[in-house]
Amino acid sequence: MKNTFGNSISITLFGESHGEEIGVVLDGFAPGIEVDEAYIAQKLALRRPIGKISTGRVEPDHFRIVSGVFEGHTTGTPICVLIPNENVRSRDYESTRFLARPGHADYAAFCKYGGYEDYRGGGHFSGRLTAPLVTAGAIAQLALEKKGIRIGTHIARCAGIADRGFENMERDIEALAGRAFAVLDESIGVKIQSAIEQAAAEGDSVGGVLETAVTGLPAGVGEPWFDSLEGVLSHALFSIPAIKGVEFGGGFAMADMRGSEANDSFAVQNGAIVTGTNHNGGINGGISNGMPILFRCAVKPTPSIYKEQDTVDFLRRQEEKLQISGRHDPAIVHRARVVVDSVTAIVLCDMLALRYGTDYLREV
Amino acid sequence: MKNTFGNSISITLFGESHGEEIGVVLDGFAPGIEVDEAYIAQKLALRRPIGKISTGRVEPDHFRIVSGVFEGHTTGTPICVLIPNENVRSRDYESTRFLARPGHADYAAFCKYGGYEDYRGGGHFSGRLTAPLVTAGAIAQLALEKKGIRIGTHIARCAGIADRGFENMERDIEALAGRAFAVLDESIGVKIQSAIEQAAAEGDSVGGVLETAVTGLPAGVGEPWFDSLEGVLSHALFSIPAIKGVEFGGGFAMADMRGSEANDSFAVQNGAIVTGTNHNGGINGGISNGMPILFRCAVKPTPSIYKEQDTVDFLRRQEEKLQISGRHDPAIVHRARVVVDSVTAIVLCDMLALRYGTDYLREV
Amino acid sequence: MKNTFGNSISITLFGESHGEEIGVVLDGFAPGIEVDEAYIAQKLALRRPIGKISTGRVEPDHFRIVSGVFEGHTTGTPICVLIPNENVRSRDYESTRFLARPGHADYAAFCKYGGYEDYRGGGHFSGRLTAPLVTAGAIAQLALEKKGIRIGTHIARCAGIADRGFENMERDIEALAGRAFAVLDESIGVKIQSAIEQAAAEGDSVGGVLETAVTGLPAGVGEPWFDSLEGVLSHALFSIPAIKGVEFGGGFAMADMRGSEANDSFAVQNGAIVTGTNHNGGINGGISNGMPILFRCAVKPTPSIYKEQDTVDFLRRQEEKLQISGRHDPAIVHRARVVVDSVTAIVLCDMLALRYGTDYLREV
Amino acid sequence: MKNTFGNSISITLFGESHGEEIGVVLDGFAPGIEVDEAYIAQKLALRRPIGKISTGRVEPDHFRIVSGVFEGHTTGTPICVLIPNENVRSRDYESTRFLARPGHADYAAFCKYGGYEDYRGGGHFSGRLTAPLVTAGAIAQLALEKKGIRIGTHIARCAGIADRGFENMERDIEALAGRAFAVLDESIGVKIQSAIEQAAAEGDSVGGVLETAVTGLPAGVGEPWFDSLEGVLSHALFSIPAIKGVEFGGGFAMADMRGSEANDSFAVQNGAIVTGTNHNGGINGGISNGMPILFRCAVKPTPSIYKEQDTVDFLRRQEEKLQISGRHDPAIVHRARVVVDSVTAIVLCDMLALRYGTDYLREV
Repeated sequence: MKNTFGNSISITLFGESHGEEIGVVLDGFAPGIEVDEAYIAQKLALRRPIGKISTGRVEPDHFRIVSGVFEGHTTGTPICVLIPNENVRSRDYESTRFLARPGHADYAAFCKYGGYEDYRGGGHFSGRLTAPLVTAGAIAQLALEKKGIRIGTHIARCAGIADRGFENMERDIEALAGRAFAVLDESIGVKIQSAIEQAAAEGDSVGGVLETAVTGLPAGVGEPWFDSLEGVLSHALFSIPAIKGVEFGGGFAMADMRGSEANDSFAVQNGAIVTGTNHNGGINGGISNGMPILFRCAVKPTPSIYKEQDTVDFLRRQEEKLQISGRHDPAIVHRARVVVDSVTAIVLCDMLALRYGTDYLREV
Repeated sequence: MKNTFGNSISITLFGESHGEEIGVVLDGFAPGIEVDEAYIAQKLALRRPIGKISTGRVEPDHFRIVSGVFEGHTTGTPICVLIPNENVRSRDYESTRFLARPGHADYAAFCKYGGYEDYRGGGHFSGRLTAPLVTAGAIAQLALEKKGIRIGTHIARCAGIADRGFENMERDIEALAGRAFAVLDESIGVKIQSAIEQAAAEGDSVGGVLETAVTGLPAGVGEPWFDSLEGVLSHALFSIPAIKGVEFGGGFAMADMRGSEANDSFAVQNGAIVTGTNHNGGINGGISNGMPILFRCAVKPTPSIYKEQDTVDFLRRQEEKLQISGRHDPAIVHRARVVVDSVTAIVLCDMLALRYGTDYLREV
Repeated sequence: MKNTFGNSISITLFGESHGEEIGVVLDGFAPGIEVDEAYIAQKLALRRPIGKISTGRVEPDHFRIVSGVFEGHTTGTPICVLIPNENVRSRDYESTRFLARPGHADYAAFCKYGGYEDYRGGGHFSGRLTAPLVTAGAIAQLALEKKGIRIGTHIARCAGIADRGFENMERDIEALAGRAFAVLDESIGVKIQSAIEQAAAEGDSVGGVLETAVTGLPAGVGEPWFDSLEGVLSHALFSIPAIKGVEFGGGFAMADMRGSEANDSFAVQNGAIVTGTNHNGGINGGISNGMPILFRCAVKPTPSIYKEQDTVDFLRRQEEKLQISGRHDPAIVHRARVVVDSVTAIVLCDMLALRYGTDYLREV
Repeated sequence: MKNTFGNSISITLFGESHGEEIGVVLDGFAPGIEVDEAYIAQKLALRRPIGKISTGRVEPDHFRIVSGVFEGHTTGTPICVLIPNENVRSRDYESTRFLARPGHADYAAFCKYGGYEDYRGGGHFSGRLTAPLVTAGAIAQLALEKKGIRIGTHIARCAGIADRGFENMERDIEALAGRAFAVLDESIGVKIQSAIEQAAAEGDSVGGVLETAVTGLPAGVGEPWFDSLEGVLSHALFSIPAIKGVEFGGGFAMADMRGSEANDSFAVQNGAIVTGTNHNGGINGGISNGMPILFRCAVKPTPSIYKEQDTVDFLRRQEEKLQISGRHDPAIVHRARVVVDSVTAIVLCDMLALRYGTDYLREV
């Protein structure tokens, strides 16, 4: 389904980095959900570049909700949010139009679109499209929060420096909501930021790992084949540019465990069924088991670096040197964090709607 | 879409571990593709238990193609393959019906299905359902091979022991096709098998990592949002029981690289555009770039172990000790390998059909 | 999506007229719904040929539910129902393999499938596939009836003879449930049957119109764009072989009305909002308004007739005379009626599940 | 999928009658198709109100293509077209907010959306949304015309007056393309227009029947179950407001034919396989047979009339009289005609893409 994702609740994404408007259509959302534009703006702010560790292209992100919201509430019909591109310098890209930037989609896009693709600033492939995605995700989070479902993502590691893990989940998620640079241990955050600055100073970039926790999701959500929570979440997460790995619970570390260690034993706690450990990340057989959902995404280092690189001119099929100019992020892991939250929120709304109906999200 | 997956080409899976028949419907497949039942049987054989390192439940897997194949060729209409369950011992499960086996879907399924689920042998959640999946995957592989697209998966590590990586990809994939225990270095295979036997002897189980390579896929296949090759493949792969992580190319290791290292520089080789390294696993911006597709799946240790475990009776909501009896696999990583190949083949057929049409697969 | 239809609840159909088994997978159905096999058998019986007015191929329709039902109830996982083809005479079709039977799909199928299609008895195009469709529809009707939603279809006209219209809807639907030949006025039924016999005697066939009413559907079901009740129902109804027209409420007759006549004025009756007339067939803007859903399907005369016809050999592209032999229905309108009910029931379950969740159907 | 329709190629519709912008996203379209904005504007003009026989709300329809088109060609990524609402008089609707306009969706919408729906001018249900639909349809028609596939719709009857039927199809379609009032016999057009004026003068409205022909569609397009050409086309057509019936070829008239009359006999003409009659409307078994596709849509009379009507206040659940004010169409059949063409074009592009791939539309 390409640029549309989801079943009962779906999103459709459109736009290009230097086009007139970028936007998203969120469909299937229940009527009567209060839409707090300040909340959306705050989520967008978390995606915006930060000083020296980000690109110089700072977009004001003046979003407009042009349909599906009336008198402050969702109407139940498709919500379209538009964001104009205001700060574009397309000339930066003209001279390198047919030079494949290593790590970027340029050459793959050329193979697919035959030279008709909008090459300016990455076109449709640009991380810029995550801005409308965040507006849709913010609306989804507004609805989930009313249901007691909370999502938080932190930078588990970046530039080789690791944050502490989740401890008190509710409190950690709460703390992350207000942080521009999403680490649990803020002293670590300072170190990561200076490591990013260091890489930027060297004309290079860094990657990282984002770790996400979801609390409050009822047990019984997800499908065995093929719409497992893991399957649908990963499908959406891998759409976020630069994500190259997704793991749930213990993930790749489970490969080296024994069953006796990896199995999460069950217990009864205050009348509720819980597990002692949570190596399965709150998901068994593709279905939520009532424990927090836990997953991690590997974010590759931003491909746009200022160091000279070897590449090809794919039109003339000949080797070239490439020196990228323009404005670029030396790291996107801190900006991607709210995108991960957004995508997660949209997927969970859809999965909940499948089981409980689209009306479910407005019930109190 | 739950038990149906895919767009232009789709699969629908049904059945339970101890039900009368399990099966799959493969729809959208081009007419005129020769269906070699011996080839399908051979793929099924790769999934079958091996001596001491597998369960004692050995199923003959007498598959029957009951529709969509006529006079030895696909007709273009839905192909249904049925496999009867012949070797079932349902009584093994009766006494523990409401005891949640740690690491298994029992409790999550109960939350979802309210006690109506078929609990015998894992019911619909059983790895048994990967048998029909393999028959569909074998048909998909038959079509892909005619197009020069080859898929190979090896046990990259198991029980903490690592196989060598892919070297000469074509030759390695060829070699794997004929191996019952899919390692590239057969001396490593011997060590892994005895480590599995050791774990089995201790009433325990082990996990591992499967690594897959695909050669011959044309550049330009996949979508930027949301049906990236990574997104759709991971969606399907996470449906395979026990898979808890999926990474493409460098995957999680890329998180600690710098951009200058992670970026795959482009070059021209014999007139073709290639990359020097393949950290992106043959995928940029969600789209194939002509290099081999490379990914790895983390397989958790089989949750069924003979050691006593702490758990709960979820009907009475009280804590219990669980001693699993019955017949179980101390490792499934070697059996899962052909399932990964199958799922990959089905996804690639669908992605190719989207771009080139359902007729594409029969063209020569 | 071809042979799979539906979103929250879907059906997948497979098989050929002379294949080993035909079947259906019904997915997304709530767990805990009692499955009454006698009820299913009774619905299948309504589809079976009747004496002189039907084909001589009488199939016992020994259906087997091979998955998704356990201890008499749905499990919530896909329900597969298989029906073997037992009474086949494939030789009837060999000599005419490349002769396009007028009004049949033979030539169109050849254009699509390139000669690989199973030509015997119409293959995958055969009305025979409506048998599994009826089993799925019966399960859907079982669930709907528990919710107070009832569906009834009568032969509004056949061979040019008209039945009376619906009067007391609840009572009429009740009466139809038990009738092998579905007319509201049984004296008309006698006349229609003898008109069919007459056509059969002349080696010819007749068509008709089926009219369907649904009572008890809550207001608010359906979508404005594009999944209107009319849109989704018509999509499914046109899949039934021989249906060439679908109209809701006043349908084509509304084209000649004035707005003042066609508009259904609203009133309050016993506290409920109702309309005086029901020219809109219970649907406004694609959404149910609480009045009975009303629609009609045009069924073309069965294309298999014994009279000699002009046609072509599409392999050799030359004109030929065709004399159809074999066993054929001089009318199918009376057999199609339960298929219309079935398709309607499946669509309504899906539309209800979208709004209220898949769990809705099991709630009491 | 609600407001998204289509598989390989899909459209997503959003907006409300009095909202800021209405729009459409067309996804899956091949890159490299020239987008002629004048052609789109011309199609939009065919939808615009005409003098006395239409509403006084004349919108300039200043459409903007904000994504997916670059340097005059499609890029292959989603095309978003926006149209602002400029001529709105929302106050007309305030006083009657809870009065159900007979024949309109007001009450059904209230049942579905619980009072959160945007009631102004019909909100999301408004025929106004067909404007973006026409822009998407125009792009689809541009692509189809390059492939030699042409679509034409005429007013087969309106206000009880019948146009002549199609004769020379190619020439008739050509003639219709340039006509603001789409009749084949222009003297009939004059009569119909004065009949509409007459109804308008009486504060009433009229309906009609639209007949559509498609030439040049290759044989072999469509699916037996469930995505028959009839099924998918009708699904899309019933989304157009006011359409209450769809019939293919002979349609309802076939119900009274005998098989010997209804069957279209085959012949060879200049080496091509053709049928003598075309009662099946170019479709057998859900698949195109190479003959022109022919169908008719019943358009009910516009529900907004100035005559006083009986209705209810659905908030207070009490009976009221309703006198509609505002600006309304006494007939929409002539404006709906280009919407039918549009929807048809989009569906055919999708069906062609399924079989031949999304790349097909740009090949020459």
